[in-house]
Amino acid sequence: MSPDATDEDVAAVVARVEGVGGEAFVSKGVVRTIIGLVGDIESFHHLNLRTLSGVADVHRISDPYKLVSRQHHPDRSTVWVGAPGRQVPIGPDSFTFLAGPCAVETPEQTLAAAQMAKGAGATILRGGAYKPRTSPYAFQGLGVRGLEILADVGRATGLPVVTEIVDARDVAVVAEHADMLQIGTRNMANFGLLQAVGEAGKPVLLKRGMTATIEEWLMAAEYIAQRGNLDVVLCERGIRTFEPATRNTLDLSAVPVVQATSHLPVIVDPSHAAGRKDLVVPLSRAAIAVGADGIIVDVHPEPETALCDGPQALLGNDLRELAQAVRRLPPAVGRVDAAELTRTA
Amino acid sequence: MSPDATDEDVAAVVARVEGVGGEAFVSKGVVRTIIGLVGDIESFHHLNLRTLSGVADVHRISDPYKLVSRQHHPDRSTVWVGAPGRQVPIGPDSFTFLAGPCAVETPEQTLAAAQMAKGAGATILRGGAYKPRTSPYAFQGLGVRGLEILADVGRATGLPVVTEIVDARDVAVVAEHADMLQIGTRNMANFGLLQAVGEAGKPVLLKRGMTATIEEWLMAAEYIAQRGNLDVVLCERGIRTFEPATRNTLDLSAVPVVQATSHLPVIVDPSHAAGRKDLVVPLSRAAIAVGADGIIVDVHPEPETALCDGPQALLGNDLRELAQAVRRLPPAVGRVDAAELTRTA
Amino acid sequence: MSPDATDEDVAAVVARVEGVGGEAFVSKGVVRTIIGLVGDIESFHHLNLRTLSGVADVHRISDPYKLVSRQHHPDRSTVWVGAPGRQVPIGPDSFTFLAGPCAVETPEQTLAAAQMAKGAGATILRGGAYKPRTSPYAFQGLGVRGLEILADVGRATGLPVVTEIVDARDVAVVAEHADMLQIGTRNMANFGLLQAVGEAGKPVLLKRGMTATIEEWLMAAEYIAQRGNLDVVLCERGIRTFEPATRNTLDLSAVPVVQATSHLPVIVDPSHAAGRKDLVVPLSRAAIAVGADGIIVDVHPEPETALCDGPQALLGNDLRELAQAVRRLPPAVGRVDAAELTRTA
Amino acid sequence: MSPDATDEDVAAVVARVEGVGGEAFVSKGVVRTIIGLVGDIESFHHLNLRTLSGVADVHRISDPYKLVSRQHHPDRSTVWVGAPGRQVPIGPDSFTFLAGPCAVETPEQTLAAAQMAKGAGATILRGGAYKPRTSPYAFQGLGVRGLEILADVGRATGLPVVTEIVDARDVAVVAEHADMLQIGTRNMANFGLLQAVGEAGKPVLLKRGMTATIEEWLMAAEYIAQRGNLDVVLCERGIRTFEPATRNTLDLSAVPVVQATSHLPVIVDPSHAAGRKDLVVPLSRAAIAVGADGIIVDVHPEPETALCDGPQALLGNDLRELAQAVRRLPPAVGRVDAAELTRTA
Repeated sequence: MSPDATDEDVAAVVARVEGVGGEAFVSKGVVRTIIGLVGDIESFHHLNLRTLSGVADVHRISDPYKLVSRQHHPDRSTVWVGAPGRQVPIGPDSFTFLAGPCAVETPEQTLAAAQMAKGAGATILRGGAYKPRTSPYAFQGLGVRGLEILADVGRATGLPVVTEIVDARDVAVVAEHADMLQIGTRNMANFGLLQAVGEAGKPVLLKRGMTATIEEWLMAAEYIAQRGNLDVVLCERGIRTFEPATRNTLDLSAVPVVQATSHLPVIVDPSHAAGRKDLVVPLSRAAIAVGADGIIVDVHPEPETALCDGPQALLGNDLRELAQAVRRLPPAVGRVDAAELTRTA
Repeated sequence: MSPDATDEDVAAVVARVEGVGGEAFVSKGVVRTIIGLVGDIESFHHLNLRTLSGVADVHRISDPYKLVSRQHHPDRSTVWVGAPGRQVPIGPDSFTFLAGPCAVETPEQTLAAAQMAKGAGATILRGGAYKPRTSPYAFQGLGVRGLEILADVGRATGLPVVTEIVDARDVAVVAEHADMLQIGTRNMANFGLLQAVGEAGKPVLLKRGMTATIEEWLMAAEYIAQRGNLDVVLCERGIRTFEPATRNTLDLSAVPVVQATSHLPVIVDPSHAAGRKDLVVPLSRAAIAVGADGIIVDVHPEPETALCDGPQALLGNDLRELAQAVRRLPPAVGRVDAAELTRTA
Repeated sequence: MSPDATDEDVAAVVARVEGVGGEAFVSKGVVRTIIGLVGDIESFHHLNLRTLSGVADVHRISDPYKLVSRQHHPDRSTVWVGAPGRQVPIGPDSFTFLAGPCAVETPEQTLAAAQMAKGAGATILRGGAYKPRTSPYAFQGLGVRGLEILADVGRATGLPVVTEIVDARDVAVVAEHADMLQIGTRNMANFGLLQAVGEAGKPVLLKRGMTATIEEWLMAAEYIAQRGNLDVVLCERGIRTFEPATRNTLDLSAVPVVQATSHLPVIVDPSHAAGRKDLVVPLSRAAIAVGADGIIVDVHPEPETALCDGPQALLGNDLRELAQAVRRLPPAVGRVDAAELTRTA
Repeated sequence: MSPDATDEDVAAVVARVEGVGGEAFVSKGVVRTIIGLVGDIESFHHLNLRTLSGVADVHRISDPYKLVSRQHHPDRSTVWVGAPGRQVPIGPDSFTFLAGPCAVETPEQTLAAAQMAKGAGATILRGGAYKPRTSPYAFQGLGVRGLEILADVGRATGLPVVTEIVDARDVAVVAEHADMLQIGTRNMANFGLLQAVGEAGKPVLLKRGMTATIEEWLMAAEYIAQRGNLDVVLCERGIRTFEPATRNTLDLSAVPVVQATSHLPVIVDPSHAAGRKDLVVPLSRAAIAVGADGIIVDVHPEPETALCDGPQALLGNDLRELAQAVRRLPPAVGRVDAAELTRTA
């Protein structure tokens, strides 16, 4: 309460809280009175306490999410990706390497990229058929044809596939072709899309909005979970800051912060954060060391002709160096290669 | 080019640029060589110059948007909102005041808010039927029922209505009931939605993404324009910064920056930027003085029971003070009240 | 407290708070316990509650500043600048226009700029003798010679002068020549310098750190006030954000936020925020309309030869337009020209 | 140049550039003309090209720093800390662990912390005698007495010491007691202080300003270098972003970015970035893996009584876990413990 709040102001707040079934504990000091609210947070949504006389400020203490919180689900979860017979884990015991081309361009390019990825140790293939681009004049993806190519290449290489979905109207067709649905950074707060993928029956890879707080990101996961889908993997991919040297600033602190708060797995995308090839290997090493449950990296057989994000795609020596890091570092932080834990019943 | 780039590196860049029909001018210094590219920017999208040997960095000089640019359309545009017989302008000659409740809750609340808005001088009614909320547990709007209430109240008060659309699947029904379609801050980069409203045949109010640069915002407008709809009004509503005293930081500089670059009208939403009632009047005055083509403000007959954003809604003395500012200040900066220019053929 | 905190954890926190003479009110809910602390905030500085078992988080509710707060000093203050016989007010009743060259270069340039400023209605002259520059290779100011020129020109034109101080060792010499000491944005958290100007016996113009929250800015003012100097004028000059179109993002919301919290006057510097001449006039108008107690603007007789920040300096038509705004707009928001209130005992 | 620039405008720019001895290459396109400038960047400082008619924008291509750049000094540098007889390296071949209490409080607390640090593998002792605090009411450090305690403890444990300096007037006394002078985040742009430590004859630990770009940070190092001191170690310690879960966002990408651009060593401070004890170990592991030349960590024998930043100080199990990471991880990324390379001539 503000210093000049009256006893009537305090009583009005207490009455309002009790009116929705909550409890209000009054802590009265010489200068200020603090009122502690206890009760079901859902019933507090429309209290509008800030509109009441004498209220200086309102601080939320509890977390606003439930289903994705560790509070009632202390064990960290593992999400299994792929059709029965070949399911790759993403979770606290393993380290999972996802790789592939930013965009699916041709069957040949996609197959070549998938083979590069697999050769470097990847166990899940990424590739975009729908590309959300800042410019309407840029390549927007091959659409359904891209999904088909990706599914074919996934079968050919034995890798489950993950691909981005950008429109709720496409959920059915994407779910038909892909093993995991990706929500990109620009759609993290597209709540209709979140609800749609929540009902699609496939695991979801939820990228952090480039300007979303960790709490907002977990609330986005809650949207998916609330529709019955708890197979959500979070992906840190950099946030917007004032620093121009990198496309975004990779927030590796988010990994242990999320792991302390939520039971969902969390992986890291160093390629899109940095936007520069030369940072991908050191940032991948850092992601492993900070305790991420996996990384997702762009590879391309010919970056200079890539239709999307060529400058960040790895190949050659860089990819070999990454493959080595992915092999050697996870055991140093207590992780097992996801390939070893893959279910091939 | 980087200082150690070779003549072959320079030649390779030149060849690549010429290969897509562009021209490359080489400026050779003692330490560095600069290559100036000239040509159709669309053909440059897939050059991937950063992947070439010896390239240090690539700076774009031209604006990436065309249809919304003042370059080929130097006169600033006016967008007319409303059915023939009562069309309200938003543009460089007038000052337009849009107001209404954050969310449509009941017919009575919406009518009361609309009458408050009209009484204060508003000529366009705002109100939300679909609310994108951070929490899946918060009020999500009345949907189609809300659209009907809004349309009824618009007719009853003689005010054209603007309402937010959050899902491309709802374009038809929203366009049927509303005079103007609003794209909210969280959907500014929802490109499928932008394209859908671009084909809906109604004017669009495009809010700036809370973390979008001005250039990205204009590119979002370009998405709409590219589908044939140039009746786009931009709305500055605050950006995300490190400052916690306000919900977002209202970027009033964006108004003259946009007006120097684009021919589209630009208005300001002080309510959602501040998130606090006590800042709405001073920020509205500042928006008028900086040269905005209008403002859009939350009003509510009973903020303490509002289902959405009650703490920022105006009523009583604050609304009277705002009404006075809206009447007196625009003439001081060379603007005419939009009511005077309304087409009532 | 975290959900798994024990009764012992709660008791330990209570004991710790009471141990320094505070009171701790416990609000116990089904899931969480909240402890409200009441007492002298200074005695709470070293409680280190976050290190105790079971503590989930600590939120400060009270403001951390006292001397600059409106809480015990509800009336807004006026600061008088200048020697007895000619003192210009900056405060809630007047509107004060400060102008001058970014840097003092020569007597002729400084005099010409001062005459431009005075002709446009300025009542206080600004000019830099010590320039904190990002590059050690850029012009660093004329030092003491610059102070002498500025003081001479101030006398010649009858304008009190304000100039920046960047090193605590220079306080005496700057205070000897200037009527008001400016702390620049880069030194807002240079606490030794703040304390030194707090003892200099001259009013202080305290610019907001380009990355400081409003609370940190007021704490910086508290440092000065704590040394006995309450003649502090705050100056909003833009904050660092992700938006590249302007050098910094002018945070005009800070003006009413500061005025609601602190009794100190607050002015706005649109020149350094924008870094572009074409935005200075609209942003100045917005600053007046939002309720600022003054503005400070760069003017230069020949911007193209300026040794510092030429691109943002006004002259000619722009300056005439600004002069007109400074004359006409303040009365529209209830302000009187500071010239009319100047004390000329 | 802007699209409407005339031939005269172009000629005026060329003339101005040539007037200071530079070269201007004109690239003329259908819509736009680009002028590439080549020459000594120092002579370009006062060109003020943005003030000339027809100039749309100016982009700097070259780096603005020289002495700290790898361009003319391709090999990465090693800085040696300590008196002859015991010099610890910080550089590309080793991994150096710096630790100690945030603030020097008493001889006993400092000694206990130093022994903890040494026991965990630290080879350089940190500790603050002058503390720049946001609040004038918070503990400001013991000053000279703190320097004496720190020096005594350094001798007793055989560890070189680094301590922060906040005022140019203290350079002599700090340099007398410490082996390395630290510039804190709030003083990174205190140019007078940078120049003063540049002349002090001791190595400098330069923390990144919490809101400084990497380029501004390197320019701050250039200020020190320009006064003749190239023994500068950079320290990434988190930047200010919108994310509230951590005090600052640790920007680990800055490590490889700096190493690609500058020959100076760069270390990481995870304690001050996170502000939370539970993140220090994972972020330290990530710092090692990303390729940092060292880390600097807060330790305290009794965090709950610490006078400064207790919540982030390590002890017990956390410190043991960190010690293990510091021993095991650096070899996995090709680094040798600095202790093995220490010069004990």
